[in-house]
Amino acid sequence: MMQSITSRAHPFFKQLVRLGKSARYRRKDNLTLLDGIHLIQAYCAVFGSPTNLIVSQSGREYKEIKDFLCSIEKIPRPNIFVLSDALFHQVSPVKAPTGIVASISIPELKLVSENKDKTFCVLLETIQDPGNMGSILRSAAAAGVSDVYLSHDCTDAWAPKTLRAAMGAHFILRIHEQSNLVKIAQQFNGTVIATSLQANRSLYQIQLTGSVAFIFGNEGMGLSDDLLQVTDEQIMIPMLGKTESLNAAAAAAICFFERVRQHLDTQNIQPECYHQ
Amino acid sequence: MMQSITSRAHPFFKQLVRLGKSARYRRKDNLTLLDGIHLIQAYCAVFGSPTNLIVSQSGREYKEIKDFLCSIEKIPRPNIFVLSDALFHQVSPVKAPTGIVASISIPELKLVSENKDKTFCVLLETIQDPGNMGSILRSAAAAGVSDVYLSHDCTDAWAPKTLRAAMGAHFILRIHEQSNLVKIAQQFNGTVIATSLQANRSLYQIQLTGSVAFIFGNEGMGLSDDLLQVTDEQIMIPMLGKTESLNAAAAAAICFFERVRQHLDTQNIQPECYHQ
Repeated sequence: MMQSITSRAHPFFKQLVRLGKSARYRRKDNLTLLDGIHLIQAYCAVFGSPTNLIVSQSGREYKEIKDFLCSIEKIPRPNIFVLSDALFHQVSPVKAPTGIVASISIPELKLVSENKDKTFCVLLETIQDPGNMGSILRSAAAAGVSDVYLSHDCTDAWAPKTLRAAMGAHFILRIHEQSNLVKIAQQFNGTVIATSLQANRSLYQIQLTGSVAFIFGNEGMGLSDDLLQVTDEQIMIPMLGKTESLNAAAAAAICFFERVRQHLDTQNIQPECYHQ
Repeated sequence: MMQSITSRAHPFFKQLVRLGKSARYRRKDNLTLLDGIHLIQAYCAVFGSPTNLIVSQSGREYKEIKDFLCSIEKIPRPNIFVLSDALFHQVSPVKAPTGIVASISIPELKLVSENKDKTFCVLLETIQDPGNMGSILRSAAAAGVSDVYLSHDCTDAWAPKTLRAAMGAHFILRIHEQSNLVKIAQQFNGTVIATSLQANRSLYQIQLTGSVAFIFGNEGMGLSDDLLQVTDEQIMIPMLGKTESLNAAAAAAICFFERVRQHLDTQNIQPECYHQ
């Protein structure tokens, strides 16, 4: 089914605009927006076609989007809505128009019966910036993290901007929102590690090959005392420059991939084997 | 001197708005804006007081800004302009108002007579996102990079948004804009390393303790063929997850800090020594 929407008063158009803007609205309806063809393809690879696709008049003519629309014309066919570029811009407020958006149900958390595979987890406290959140999720997925726990005051993990920055990591990770991080840390069966500028030990002095949970705190304020008290290790990332300042997402990437490095080192795996 | 600006027609106000918006204008006058107290303090630590400080009516009352304004009341005193919150918002379009902005001359590149200290450089080709650019500069400064070379089509390194994301790295690094990266790579006296998803060797298999230049390419397209051809090593960052996708700034941080790790490993430096 392909349908044109030409009026701002169209109920579906109004819903799309609200989904883009309001975390409360997304949560109420358990819906969100995927913006851009690559993110939508990452979703399809895991969950199959989304129910609703929204394309702009210009976007319909882009080869990549055309090919994609042809490839998914199956049963059940998704609903395809065509919007004028001006209307589409209100749905997808990114500067470089992507030409395609999908509205999806936020996937349910795949429950795992036992916790024995929780060997690599991440706890995020009060991460405020959607770009940072997305980048952390993306690096986590690439490093083999299974579960990410978010405090109640983190930015919305399922906001379109966070989804875009994470480039499909949402569909691989188990993301636990509104988590009690102190409880999770206390119950974690392994080493709970927090980064802290005041720490004496370096990231590179810690064995990371076992069951590990990294905690990262707010971009400006760092971790709360409550959470610091339940960590097993506090480490700092040694710096050789005249500054001691790293972006939260950069710090997370460095920690995650130090674990990857140690893991490969232990396994003595050759790159040909793990780089599929 | 403290001066109130109440009119949008004030020439200095008009200049500030233009400086925030236009890369061409910044370049023409060799001026830019520093947004937020921490960034301004990082500037002061290197260059002393900026000539012009702009505070909002609300910002004047913030303790941090008040203390800062008192601390810099020296000779030569900076010009301090007070703007209504509404006017200030047009100068500093960040969501959470910072309350203080400085306008500064873009610092001249400190020339170094010889290249012998160019042991750790970064080349950036067509990096488009100001947040990524800023985060890369910030990580580079923290890892001890001396020089960063930017291709002509990178996003403006001195844009307020890039400056904010880099958190003072600009005042420590030598940033060479409009560089001919192929020439720089060819003339580099050390190992020129590019990341590539097609590479066979892993970052962790390369010795990084010598003179090293890392090259990073465009967020979507990667490196140009011209530049790939003049690299000494092409490496990939091994990933253990179900995705092989990293944000450009995350990838850069991982590479920079693998060099830091190898350096510390060689030197057998204890964290107490290098964490000042």
